[in-house]
Amino acid sequence: MAERDILLRFGERVRELRIAQGYSQEDFAAECGLDRTYIGGIERGERNLGLKNVELIARTLGITLSQLMKGL
Amino acid sequence: MAERDILLRFGERVRELRIAQGYSQEDFAAECGLDRTYIGGIERGERNLGLKNVELIARTLGITLSQLMKGL
Repeated sequence: MAERDILLRFGERVRELRIAQGYSQEDFAAECGLDRTYIGGIERGERNLGLKNVELIARTLGITLSQLMKGL
Repeated sequence: MAERDILLRFGERVRELRIAQGYSQEDFAAECGLDRTYIGGIERGERNLGLKNVELIARTLGITLSQLMKGL
């Protein structure tokens, strides 16, 4: 694929939405029940996270999985 | 959550779409470049698959990630 890696695109999306909702990385991680360094790794596209954590992130952001994935 | 596990819902969606496109499990696995038993595990909701394989499945089905996740 010429497109950037899905993990990078996903990480960027998570970062945008998190910031748009006024969360620090630390607060967002706490809301998700995940570690701050893990969220950091996701946002940098370093984590091939599993579907369960993708859903957890969508739920914490208050959006559907489909909305979270839109345009990715 | 009262809802069924995301892995079960996702697996059911993959199975429906695969069958709707006329793929056997074996042919679909081959198209994805994944093992048939792995696809079977996904369809039964036994695999917390990573985002990279979620994207691979969407691409093989010829739909977007957002479409794949719709309603889940």
